[in-house]
Amino acid sequence: MLLHLPSVERLIEAFRRLPGVGKRSAERFALHLLAAPEEDAIELGKAILEARRRVRRCTRCGNLAETDPCEICTDEKRDRSVLCVVERPAGVIALEGSGGFRGLYHVLHGVISPLDGVGPDDLRIDKLITRVKEEGIREVILATNATVEGENTALYISHLLEPLGVSVTRIAHGVPMGSGLEYADGVTLTRALAGRTKI
Amino acid sequence: MLLHLPSVERLIEAFRRLPGVGKRSAERFALHLLAAPEEDAIELGKAILEARRRVRRCTRCGNLAETDPCEICTDEKRDRSVLCVVERPAGVIALEGSGGFRGLYHVLHGVISPLDGVGPDDLRIDKLITRVKEEGIREVILATNATVEGENTALYISHLLEPLGVSVTRIAHGVPMGSGLEYADGVTLTRALAGRTKI
Repeated sequence: MLLHLPSVERLIEAFRRLPGVGKRSAERFALHLLAAPEEDAIELGKAILEARRRVRRCTRCGNLAETDPCEICTDEKRDRSVLCVVERPAGVIALEGSGGFRGLYHVLHGVISPLDGVGPDDLRIDKLITRVKEEGIREVILATNATVEGENTALYISHLLEPLGVSVTRIAHGVPMGSGLEYADGVTLTRALAGRTKI
Repeated sequence: MLLHLPSVERLIEAFRRLPGVGKRSAERFALHLLAAPEEDAIELGKAILEARRRVRRCTRCGNLAETDPCEICTDEKRDRSVLCVVERPAGVIALEGSGGFRGLYHVLHGVISPLDGVGPDDLRIDKLITRVKEEGIREVILATNATVEGENTALYISHLLEPLGVSVTRIAHGVPMGSGLEYADGVTLTRALAGRTKI
């Protein structure tokens, strides 16, 4: 509807595909780019095309990278015997941001979800098995999300890894740090109780 | 910080310049585009460059358009004797969306704001005076925003238009339709009372 200009409507449609962007936000973005200095708009357009052209998946770990293998896979200072399995590159970013992990990653690019038509063969699970066999992995940490699909995927992978004689662990789930019991939901509290450890 | 990839950091910086987009949203947008089908990312990048290339300001009214003069300026079915002055193209979109105005527009592309270094000469005010003189305008409706700057700009323009013998009006300000007195602020209520009309 905005100004009835075909190129602007096309732009709004493209913006609406971004996560959490509705009609109003998309219109605001479009209008901003048309009113802003021309360089700003051209910079964003080119940055998108450039990033998409340069960023590829690392063929080893599946993480997003400009080099293949990626910087994490080739970092000799990291513990190459521990592999952390995550659903998406966002998981790698979150864990790297925490600074709490110094091993290598394996990105599945999804979870097993029969309702969405995603089976084990659609994920990078075979690649994970190959890595565990060939790279001398000692421990695999399953850090898929705490959803039904994430839990099931972790369980499925753990069954596949069992015969390989590798240690398979799952990240802990419980009350978030800095938060109180009264803010946690029932499922989280149940998990927090079941996962209690000795002090 | 995201993945430490130069092209991705450049993309995040570009996204952050959009209105209302912070660091987290920009990262989410970037990650989405890198994970989404390649066509989606390319479509957004191209749509931005294309819109910015095609959309220009109408030299007559200042509104955004792909043609010059724009579709509204050349629409013979509109009332060519009434001119509505707005701050930005967003104002035209809002008024067109309401369907309540069938005259022509004049977009100032800003307001007089000494604190931001914007004076009358930085706006399309001289162009407005020329149009009123040459186009047989009967009435000028000042629809700048209900802010201090918008009010001052309206006052400034009304003084300039006074000697030209044209009717100068200001849009009404008051309680929004569908809203109650208890939700309106004091300034709005004062304006609503001062602007009361006979039933």
